[in-house]
Amino acid sequence: MSRLQTVQTLHCRLALPQTLSDSMHGDMRAFELNLVRLRDEEGAEGVGYTYTCGRNGAAIEAVLAKDFTELLVGEDADRIEHLWNKLWWASHYGGRGGPTVLALSAVDMALWDLKARRLGQPLWKLLGGNDPRVPCYAGGIDLQLPLDDLLAQTDGNLAKGFRAIKMKVGREKLSEDVARVAAMREHLGEGFPLMVDANMRWSADEAIRAAHAFRPFDLTWLEEPLIPDDVAGQARVVREGGIPIASGENLRTLWEFKQLIAAGGVTFPEPDVTNCGGITPFMKIAHLAEAFNLPVTTHGAHDVTVHLLGAVPNRSYLEAHGFGLDKYIAEPLQISEGFAVAPDRPGHGIEFDWKGLEAIRA
Amino acid sequence: MSRLQTVQTLHCRLALPQTLSDSMHGDMRAFELNLVRLRDEEGAEGVGYTYTCGRNGAAIEAVLAKDFTELLVGEDADRIEHLWNKLWWASHYGGRGGPTVLALSAVDMALWDLKARRLGQPLWKLLGGNDPRVPCYAGGIDLQLPLDDLLAQTDGNLAKGFRAIKMKVGREKLSEDVARVAAMREHLGEGFPLMVDANMRWSADEAIRAAHAFRPFDLTWLEEPLIPDDVAGQARVVREGGIPIASGENLRTLWEFKQLIAAGGVTFPEPDVTNCGGITPFMKIAHLAEAFNLPVTTHGAHDVTVHLLGAVPNRSYLEAHGFGLDKYIAEPLQISEGFAVAPDRPGHGIEFDWKGLEAIRA
Repeated sequence: MSRLQTVQTLHCRLALPQTLSDSMHGDMRAFELNLVRLRDEEGAEGVGYTYTCGRNGAAIEAVLAKDFTELLVGEDADRIEHLWNKLWWASHYGGRGGPTVLALSAVDMALWDLKARRLGQPLWKLLGGNDPRVPCYAGGIDLQLPLDDLLAQTDGNLAKGFRAIKMKVGREKLSEDVARVAAMREHLGEGFPLMVDANMRWSADEAIRAAHAFRPFDLTWLEEPLIPDDVAGQARVVREGGIPIASGENLRTLWEFKQLIAAGGVTFPEPDVTNCGGITPFMKIAHLAEAFNLPVTTHGAHDVTVHLLGAVPNRSYLEAHGFGLDKYIAEPLQISEGFAVAPDRPGHGIEFDWKGLEAIRA
Repeated sequence: MSRLQTVQTLHCRLALPQTLSDSMHGDMRAFELNLVRLRDEEGAEGVGYTYTCGRNGAAIEAVLAKDFTELLVGEDADRIEHLWNKLWWASHYGGRGGPTVLALSAVDMALWDLKARRLGQPLWKLLGGNDPRVPCYAGGIDLQLPLDDLLAQTDGNLAKGFRAIKMKVGREKLSEDVARVAAMREHLGEGFPLMVDANMRWSADEAIRAAHAFRPFDLTWLEEPLIPDDVAGQARVVREGGIPIASGENLRTLWEFKQLIAAGGVTFPEPDVTNCGGITPFMKIAHLAEAFNLPVTTHGAHDVTVHLLGAVPNRSYLEAHGFGLDKYIAEPLQISEGFAVAPDRPGHGIEFDWKGLEAIRA
């Protein structure tokens, strides 16, 4: 038995080297990182994390340090489903969604890390063991980059080993988006996997119009055309738009994914392990996608998510988009010839620079 | 123009005189109260609040005191829709749901209170002005009360002026629920409005079975038979159960209400102004219900919600369930012959005992 003894939390603020922007989140100047480290009575450890694009980090810290610490200490860390449901229901009334689910995601990740480290297995093997080699794309947050800078960023990504790239769309005029996508297709050449991401900017009809305009450019997918709440609208975009649709980074539960998938509202479900409730629901979402004969892609936290896609047979691309976290990690994930490889270290295998992170405590 | 100058917050813990319990939240020993007081440059004030059944209050305080204070100060308090959307989108990534929406609900309430006080109107008039006299029921949190105590509590509620009562169901065996409901119907007499509340305990099929078993007792509604995430399941309960269904206290957005209502999953939509995003979305939900030819009922915060039901023509019952807040309010809402009357004081008209509340700061 692995009885939980301590819960250590840390809330950091990572200033971004340059301001990032997309169509709905506006300018992002800093990301927040919330860490949780669990330790059991035998001294075994597990670490989990979540992040935000600049808001709610103090609330996540409050849930972790107060509510969840009270609920976790003394519990058996091996009973992950039991603990997940305990935290979910204890915090349900005020906590269904939002910061509480991001906090739960971090705890669940730490529990799986702890279990895998005690068992001496990397997560990708423990969770399914399909193939540690996962295709990976570079996700740019580049809506306001001038075209020349966008192409230069793209050349940088090619040099880093990426063989698939995503760019932002959702500028003031659709014609601007179309010109940028056309230039990227021209630059990358026929057949190079190219995705676009609208970050919830459009109505269903605007998205269908955009999808039609993008058809000549052979996109792998159009991501998040609508707000996550408009399930019926997005099902129309899938049916009438004529190009595959990815979404899920703003869905917070297995049930939201079920509603969207069952309604025919998504082609590439895209959970984020740091905000969908953790590894436990992520794996259920991946298997739900498999049951609907859909691939699963991802958002954020590529260093952990590489294990989850490495576990399942219906994996599509892994998204890589850093926010400066790599410099606080001992051996950041490497990309080579378009693939990332899940490490064979036990757990998720991420070793954080705690001293460095302490220095940027929020 | 009403430019916001200060945002004052307070997070309190109210111990309950007796432990309350329902079928899914377990034992509740204390409620949390989160207050926010806005003041503009001219000294006008607005006050809003939200509450939890014991978790997430520290997170709500963090959102209010940090994120929302930064976003609100200097803004024009009269542009409520603009501010609601500013807070929603600024906090969307980590804050869609959960503590952030409860915090937003409190801010939105304070903005409406401020506006109405500046205009010298009570909220029920400002928001629609239908009828300040609203039918009101007593909502007991009484699942584990022995039957004799349940009947004694009921007599107490009748003596307080209630002419409609709700009791909890969802005990270990359905036969226990049926016996308790039968005893209450016997005690109250034919035609007395009686509701039951399952607090998400059942599956769709269990709920349909229970609805059939409850049919002889002429219930006004069966509340929250399922988790809020099972829209398709609850639509089956409405279609196959044969008794009206109320739900909504665990829905956190206008869009969640739209999905449930449009799917035919609810007879009495039941928003809570302290957790659905505030007065702004509450009014939209009430009007959405009207468009679907449905009544609207409520959850919690009867002292504010009496105004919202007093504003609209499709109002059903107001729920009254206190958690000890009345003793910190100058003139608590009174019930007489089954009705509550929205006060004619400007705003929501609640005057809190700030000194008393300071003494129970969490």
